[in-house]
Amino acid sequence: MKAVFFDGARFALEETPKPEPGPGEVLIRIAVAGICATDIEIGRGYMDFTGIPGHEFVGIVAESDRESLPGARVVGEINCPCGACDFCLRDLGGHCPNRTVLGIHGRDGCFAEYLTLPEENLHVVPESLSDARAVFVEPLAAAFRIVEQIGSVEGKRAAVVGDGKLGLLVAQALASDGANVCLVGRHPERESIVSPRGIEFIEEKSERAAALRRSFPIAVDCTGSPDGPPAALELVEPMGILVVKSTVHEPLSLPSDRLVVDEIALVGSRCGPFKRAIRALETGEIETEGLVEKSFPLAGAPEAIRLASEPGVLKVLITTN
Amino acid sequence: MKAVFFDGARFALEETPKPEPGPGEVLIRIAVAGICATDIEIGRGYMDFTGIPGHEFVGIVAESDRESLPGARVVGEINCPCGACDFCLRDLGGHCPNRTVLGIHGRDGCFAEYLTLPEENLHVVPESLSDARAVFVEPLAAAFRIVEQIGSVEGKRAAVVGDGKLGLLVAQALASDGANVCLVGRHPERESIVSPRGIEFIEEKSERAAALRRSFPIAVDCTGSPDGPPAALELVEPMGILVVKSTVHEPLSLPSDRLVVDEIALVGSRCGPFKRAIRALETGEIETEGLVEKSFPLAGAPEAIRLASEPGVLKVLITTN
Repeated sequence: MKAVFFDGARFALEETPKPEPGPGEVLIRIAVAGICATDIEIGRGYMDFTGIPGHEFVGIVAESDRESLPGARVVGEINCPCGACDFCLRDLGGHCPNRTVLGIHGRDGCFAEYLTLPEENLHVVPESLSDARAVFVEPLAAAFRIVEQIGSVEGKRAAVVGDGKLGLLVAQALASDGANVCLVGRHPERESIVSPRGIEFIEEKSERAAALRRSFPIAVDCTGSPDGPPAALELVEPMGILVVKSTVHEPLSLPSDRLVVDEIALVGSRCGPFKRAIRALETGEIETEGLVEKSFPLAGAPEAIRLASEPGVLKVLITTN
Repeated sequence: MKAVFFDGARFALEETPKPEPGPGEVLIRIAVAGICATDIEIGRGYMDFTGIPGHEFVGIVAESDRESLPGARVVGEINCPCGACDFCLRDLGGHCPNRTVLGIHGRDGCFAEYLTLPEENLHVVPESLSDARAVFVEPLAAAFRIVEQIGSVEGKRAAVVGDGKLGLLVAQALASDGANVCLVGRHPERESIVSPRGIEFIEEKSERAAALRRSFPIAVDCTGSPDGPPAALELVEPMGILVVKSTVHEPLSLPSDRLVVDEIALVGSRCGPFKRAIRALETGEIETEGLVEKSFPLAGAPEAIRLASEPGVLKVLITTN
């Protein structure tokens, strides 16, 4: 099959054997894959990953021991836990120290024609969801993770900092959970994506942004930049919560007196609930069309990754079918 | 009266008028005051404070509108909120943006013969508590704040990093709430202070410390050093909590991938419940005698502050009566 291979230095399209599903695993033919900021970080050495990257996908089950599965259109959770350790026994497989992670750690990913995943990782996609929308399930689930971690945000004010592909999803996810959301960004043209969801767009470094300093009980950094968390912290009121969604290579640097004197809680946040994300996409609560920058065929994947790494670029997709 | 005055450059003993209590305030004659790391930070420019520093004290009410108070032995909460703002109306006066803070912000403190505080800030000290123990109420309350913020720690494993005066109190406070506490420090001779409370002492950089990496659901940084939070973070298991107690001048620098991938919550923590601290001192759950480095008379306060600023020094007291 064709696949994108990262050798530690560059992404290149290669011919490689179709993967063999292990026990309990299924073989999936990829339809559409999405490029995430984590993939770009992998290109910069994150996780020392080599192999086939990519972890956002929708595809068709090609082979499975379970009779009903072949032909099913699925999305897949990316963590593959050992099932036996202390974390797995506490139902926290996403934090299993022995886990592999699709396209990120110890397991080839979805920038390819095929991938394998444990059957239990799969969620069947409702017919009403197009591939172009279903490919957003994984990042949208990560957005809804915030609500799992900090509890319902209904009726609360929340600032989302960063109007990139993740910030646009997080803002909508929090709004769909009932929060009064302000999206703080640098692309005013993106206001039209979120304003129909009742989200206020605020330009960073504007007077309005300055006036809202220290006023939000919740702020979420979605910038993917080391400058993001301190900027988001500026917006948090005393005893508020700062959620950090994006990993960056640089250390996180924050004023300790602000955190301690104002007793702010910082919460790191990663993968989330697929079922909640599928439901939100089904009901139309979440806009995805305006989030797509461009689609490439698999043959153009290295170019797609280059485009996705440019600042300000929205979601870049790779279509394989 | 005699008082220590900080002019922005140095601490000096001066003769200054006895303060006049405002409406609702009482005049207190200080018996014993404690020197906190925050006082040392003030000497380095923290909060741009000038005036009389000091916020840990026990004293006798000298003047009050309330007939029952004069002669009472009291300790006092340090935040003086406005009573009218949004935070005050939510009973979060400790975060009132208009507050003054004893010896830290906008209000003269306790390194003096007298101070004034609102009557509502006072707690009468039980007879069974000596002045030398009662002066620990304020920092011990700050230790118990952790339990207010993260919930009961009963039966949970907790690592306290830093065996200074704050770490020794935090370790005991968590143990008295039922946690299984490891105190990670660099002064093995302090093991005898905490071991009678069932606390395990672990030398930092020992094999035992290395073996416990990523194993604690709770870790608390009490080092007062910028190296403390990253060291404490090393000990936290995925989805665990890192409590940061001490403010340092330098920014807090932490690996963002550890926080995000392992979904760790960092919680800044400050002032706490006086009643809980008084009760714990009364019942003898908390050892304080071994925590005192040396006592000085008020005339020796500048020297006391110099001693308190040396690394490894325990609690330095100033006795005024």
